[in-house]
Amino acid sequence: MSASTTPAATQSDPRTRELLDRRHHTLGRHSPLFYSEPLELVRGRGVWVEDSAGHRYLDAYNNVPHVGHAHPEVARAVHEQMQRLALHTRYLNENILDYAEQLLATFDPGLDRVAFSNSGSEANELALRIARQHTGARGVLVSDWSYHGTTSALAEVTTALAAGEPFADHARRLRIPDATGLDAAATADLLEAALREVDEAVASLQEAGHGVALVVVDSLFTTEGLVRVPAGYVDGLARRVRAAGGLVVSDEVQAGFGRTGTSMWGYQEHGIVPDLVTLGKPMGNGHPLGGTVLGADLLEEFGARNEYFNTFGGNPVSAAAGRAVLEVMRTEGLRERAAALAPVLQEGLHALAAATPGIGAVRGQGLFQGVDFVDPATGAPDGETARAVVEGMRRAGVLISRIGRDGNVLKIRPPLAIAQDDVRTLLDRLTEVSARVSGGEVAARA
Amino acid sequence: MSASTTPAATQSDPRTRELLDRRHHTLGRHSPLFYSEPLELVRGRGVWVEDSAGHRYLDAYNNVPHVGHAHPEVARAVHEQMQRLALHTRYLNENILDYAEQLLATFDPGLDRVAFSNSGSEANELALRIARQHTGARGVLVSDWSYHGTTSALAEVTTALAAGEPFADHARRLRIPDATGLDAAATADLLEAALREVDEAVASLQEAGHGVALVVVDSLFTTEGLVRVPAGYVDGLARRVRAAGGLVVSDEVQAGFGRTGTSMWGYQEHGIVPDLVTLGKPMGNGHPLGGTVLGADLLEEFGARNEYFNTFGGNPVSAAAGRAVLEVMRTEGLRERAAALAPVLQEGLHALAAATPGIGAVRGQGLFQGVDFVDPATGAPDGETARAVVEGMRRAGVLISRIGRDGNVLKIRPPLAIAQDDVRTLLDRLTEVSARVSGGEVAARA
Repeated sequence: MSASTTPAATQSDPRTRELLDRRHHTLGRHSPLFYSEPLELVRGRGVWVEDSAGHRYLDAYNNVPHVGHAHPEVARAVHEQMQRLALHTRYLNENILDYAEQLLATFDPGLDRVAFSNSGSEANELALRIARQHTGARGVLVSDWSYHGTTSALAEVTTALAAGEPFADHARRLRIPDATGLDAAATADLLEAALREVDEAVASLQEAGHGVALVVVDSLFTTEGLVRVPAGYVDGLARRVRAAGGLVVSDEVQAGFGRTGTSMWGYQEHGIVPDLVTLGKPMGNGHPLGGTVLGADLLEEFGARNEYFNTFGGNPVSAAAGRAVLEVMRTEGLRERAAALAPVLQEGLHALAAATPGIGAVRGQGLFQGVDFVDPATGAPDGETARAVVEGMRRAGVLISRIGRDGNVLKIRPPLAIAQDDVRTLLDRLTEVSARVSGGEVAARA
Repeated sequence: MSASTTPAATQSDPRTRELLDRRHHTLGRHSPLFYSEPLELVRGRGVWVEDSAGHRYLDAYNNVPHVGHAHPEVARAVHEQMQRLALHTRYLNENILDYAEQLLATFDPGLDRVAFSNSGSEANELALRIARQHTGARGVLVSDWSYHGTTSALAEVTTALAAGEPFADHARRLRIPDATGLDAAATADLLEAALREVDEAVASLQEAGHGVALVVVDSLFTTEGLVRVPAGYVDGLARRVRAAGGLVVSDEVQAGFGRTGTSMWGYQEHGIVPDLVTLGKPMGNGHPLGGTVLGADLLEEFGARNEYFNTFGGNPVSAAAGRAVLEVMRTEGLRERAAALAPVLQEGLHALAAATPGIGAVRGQGLFQGVDFVDPATGAPDGETARAVVEGMRRAGVLISRIGRDGNVLKIRPPLAIAQDDVRTLLDRLTEVSARVSGGEVAARA
């Protein structure tokens, strides 16, 4: 992840210095911020946000405001319910049932129950507990550059962020195979090698006595840098985990809710149906909302053994927020919009890549695109140039970030509310900034 | 906890049957509900809620709507901010700083930083991670009838709820000493024995090689049944944990935010200052909001080792909700109200106890009171009568619940917005229902 902390003393703007100082004295010095010159955002609408000095920015980064910043329908639905009742699910309430039914209707048959919570972390924690109790095993398979939440059990299987906990004995890291630029034969070899690695990880967990409880997969492999896996990889991985008695968890915090345009859920791009699906960020358009979707048998088995209750999870206000997101997606045709605009964005990025020696592959699906920066001579990842481009884009009025092990992949993930003109603006600015940065006029390092 | 699931087929009301059926097909059969005949609540204001049939209930149970159901100021603040921006803390935003400063001003010196999250579970998870990394130890001390959250690491130290995970090797259960009805000499003996038990638990963790990372204490010992500990117990416990290198965590999800009337935070009733304080339920009046309050050194140490970021935690809308709660508490003098009404409630409960052979002790502080039901002949806990009273109160239009290992302690915990007339209503109904139930006219068991 590209978040960074920023010392107050080095900031030139007095307002920024003051806010940073107050922040350091309340949230601490390490509470992560974007950009060497942090932004103070005060309002937003659609894909546009405004800072306290009145500068506008095209938000091509955030998936929390999934249907657009400050969407009036979401605000209205939340306000209406807050004026009535904000309580928990130990009383009956129709809102939560309406929402659960609408949400579950978007999943494949067999994924017919949902446990609501307040974040992707809570959703993944519940998936972990359910999988471990169901299998009687402890072992976890994760990608070797991934992140699924803030809790202790998730921190000890985190590979893409610094965590004070040692990596768990009961976990194994999988290298996610990248077929970018490979021909069919090389892709087939890569797939075979990657699945062999899965076999080895499974065997290793079994030999150590942990067994295999679950694998957690981000369907778009976003943190990894939007890795383009060989067709059949996710299916082969899932089959191997299931053969070992484990469950398959699809973490849809990044890939879900129509982000790919072609599917509502990222796992559908791989032709599998997972055992559990975890939901977070875009679910409530900023309202804290998460969910774990699963089959009835699995949930009832867990429910019989555990008195599980999440106080805020699925309260009527959260349900109102979640339902408004689904309704706005439908009435504004946002998944269809993502499908329609993705080619525009992709073609523009490919054209830029073709014209820019420092850009390697363009990756991703739908409205989640990555742009590799590489050393033109060696092809080696160039995180420094990517960093300069992200900072340059911020100064040029467009918010993006970067991902991947080397931080060299631009992360372009706008709210689905983006319009064609906005995509053009994004491409124009990126072209200008890339040229400036690649031309040696590198932005000053903070 | 007294939550229970309810089969749809046995319900007499067709609307309830339909909602339960839909619930079972979405949230599952085990999603906990109150009462043998579940309530469908549709709106609330202040301490009153209304069901779908138009019946009104005095809410003497819920601490989530801390300043009153559907408080217009909280709804307004959330709506106003939602119309502007709902984003995360990786951009600067003054709302979160204003709120953090106001919140931290209510704590003792040394507790001067806060990490926001979305629930008490997340707050306790973070406290656990911080304490373990700081101490290098794994050991956890908890009460033998307690609950601090839904995650795997918290489930394996849960003692008051069914959890599928075995109780952790690295945890030890403490019996919380109850001085109810004891004279000074017996209380002193009890204190000594209880602190000896702490010494033994500490030694046991050390001998097993786990060391002591933390103790987690609910200052009011609410889940335990509002146990009245000997003066000096919490202080003695804290000293022993610290002497062993561990940290003291006060879980204020139940006891905090002025609930006791005499203090803002429950730990203040014991004359200690904990190392970490965890916040949840009442914090956002229903908006999902949690927080971990701690000293700067502890937070900075953790921040230097961990790239910790909570997407929804401390977003501007959550901050608006939290700030509105503090402001309403101030402008409506709710802590002062709790202090003023607590004696009215307590005296009424004591009078009822004096007149009712089946009622033993009245326990608790401020607007959190418990009423013990016991066998008048043997003094043994009488959970069945308590259950009948809770159900009878629901039918009489007052919402309460029950706690304690034997489920024999009525849990009376109204929103702080309660008025003197409401307290009278609560007492009147409880007197009637207790008489009816104790008189043998026990409510039918569902």
